[in-house]
Amino acid sequence: MLALSNDGGPHLTRDQPRPERPPGEVRLRLRLAGVCDTDLQLARGYMGFSGVLGHELVGSVVEADDPALLGRRMVTDINAACGECDDCRERDGHHCERRTVLGILGRDGAFAEELVMPSRCLVPVPDSVPDDHAVFAEPLAAALHVLDEVEAGAPVTVLGDGKLGLLIALALAGAGVATTLVGHHRDKLAIAARAGVTTLLEAELGARRAQVVVEATGSPGGLSLATRMLVPRGTLILKTTVADAVPFDAAPIVVNELRVVGSRCGDLRRAIAALAEGRIDPTPLIVARYPLSRADEALAHAGRRGTLKVLVEGV
Amino acid sequence: MLALSNDGGPHLTRDQPRPERPPGEVRLRLRLAGVCDTDLQLARGYMGFSGVLGHELVGSVVEADDPALLGRRMVTDINAACGECDDCRERDGHHCERRTVLGILGRDGAFAEELVMPSRCLVPVPDSVPDDHAVFAEPLAAALHVLDEVEAGAPVTVLGDGKLGLLIALALAGAGVATTLVGHHRDKLAIAARAGVTTLLEAELGARRAQVVVEATGSPGGLSLATRMLVPRGTLILKTTVADAVPFDAAPIVVNELRVVGSRCGDLRRAIAALAEGRIDPTPLIVARYPLSRADEALAHAGRRGTLKVLVEGV
Repeated sequence: MLALSNDGGPHLTRDQPRPERPPGEVRLRLRLAGVCDTDLQLARGYMGFSGVLGHELVGSVVEADDPALLGRRMVTDINAACGECDDCRERDGHHCERRTVLGILGRDGAFAEELVMPSRCLVPVPDSVPDDHAVFAEPLAAALHVLDEVEAGAPVTVLGDGKLGLLIALALAGAGVATTLVGHHRDKLAIAARAGVTTLLEAELGARRAQVVVEATGSPGGLSLATRMLVPRGTLILKTTVADAVPFDAAPIVVNELRVVGSRCGDLRRAIAALAEGRIDPTPLIVARYPLSRADEALAHAGRRGTLKVLVEGV
Repeated sequence: MLALSNDGGPHLTRDQPRPERPPGEVRLRLRLAGVCDTDLQLARGYMGFSGVLGHELVGSVVEADDPALLGRRMVTDINAACGECDDCRERDGHHCERRTVLGILGRDGAFAEELVMPSRCLVPVPDSVPDDHAVFAEPLAAALHVLDEVEAGAPVTVLGDGKLGLLIALALAGAGVATTLVGHHRDKLAIAARAGVTTLLEAELGARRAQVVVEATGSPGGLSLATRMLVPRGTLILKTTVADAVPFDAAPIVVNELRVVGSRCGDLRRAIAALAEGRIDPTPLIVARYPLSRADEALAHAGRRGTLKVLVEGV
């Protein structure tokens, strides 16, 4: 089948074997996928991943143990966990040590005609949610996961107007959080402003302080900027990382008794609910669409500095 | 009066003016003081502090609005806060923006014949607690503050067998926490081992993981070591900082969704209670005593690599 595979670099192939479907798993036909910065990092060698790239998608069930699932549109949690360890039994399995991760770790991903995932990872998409919205379910779930670290009623400042920072700002505003987005690009900030987010160029930041800051810049200076602008006992939620170690002064964390929390994947059901209730419209982030047969071009496009969401359409 | 003052460097003086005592403050005669690494950093220019150094002490009240206080032995919170702001009204004022800090920020410290502090900062020392124990109240309060970030029943690993790391390990063990101390010095680890702490040389650490790690190494590599050894969703409590920015890879914080919490000053009453109940004996940390007239030598001694607690005796 047609797929964008990574093996020391990304390449389009028509010879990718169709994935086998073990019991308990479901075969999906790709409808629409999104390119994430993680895909770009994997293509550059991050985590040494070999296999089909892609982990943001909406697909249709074409084969399953339960025939009632056939034809249903689905989004999926990317963590295929063991289902038996403490993390799986007590939490969501997102830190299961035996997990594979769709298109990231030990499991072929979404930039392909077909993929398989455990049925317990799938979340059905209501008819009212079009594919253009549903394809954002995975990053939106990660964005909404920020809420798990924010006290009710606390205003939140998001640093970074790239696609993740923007999506977080839209998600928080949609959840009723008083949200400020700090970035470098007036056109991107305008997307958030139209959704009720207060926006600021970083140059306008001055001596502003914040109680809760979400670091989504993906740039080396983001962590230091965030710790400097927090009030004592403030919370810093880290969403993006930079590839390498960067110089960092941890003193403000101790002196101001800050709380720094890493935040990764979230709950897909919450994301689908937010989309179904119309609390967020992520489509202003879409800047380009490519057919799966040009998924390599989609990846290259997404890799251009400042590009928001690039989509890949199934065949 | 006699004092160890800092002004572009520490120097002993007999010409230090006796401090004025504003209403609401109490004049203490120094009985015994301890040298902290912060004193050494201040002497090297940290925070640009000019004035009398020293903030760990036990003293006797010699002048107060309330005559009932006269002659009482006291320890003191180092934060002289405004008493009016949100932080003062809702918390402990440790982050009051208008505070002065004894021997650290805008207020002369303890290496002197006399000092003044607001009466609300003082905690009386029971007769059962000798000066050699009471002088540890301030750093012990900071050590016990770690407990505010640890779930009941969770085992804790402390990195660093310097005086702060050791004191934290003793404090946690005294509070009934299953504590492991990781360090470089067999003789120092032995002090903790005698108090029921499990001890390990860093070289023996291997692939051990931990749910809660306290970083008290004061060394550039401590932060990275701590983040690497934590299990997913683990907690890192930062107690010490290094003077400058160090290369740091924040990726484990995000990928493993770690929680990093800065922890500074604690509650002196809790420390005095732990001492009064005999739950901790900090005196094995004492390695030297100097009279106030040789406080400069005390500071120099404390600055030698690997030195535990050096005390300064009042006149």
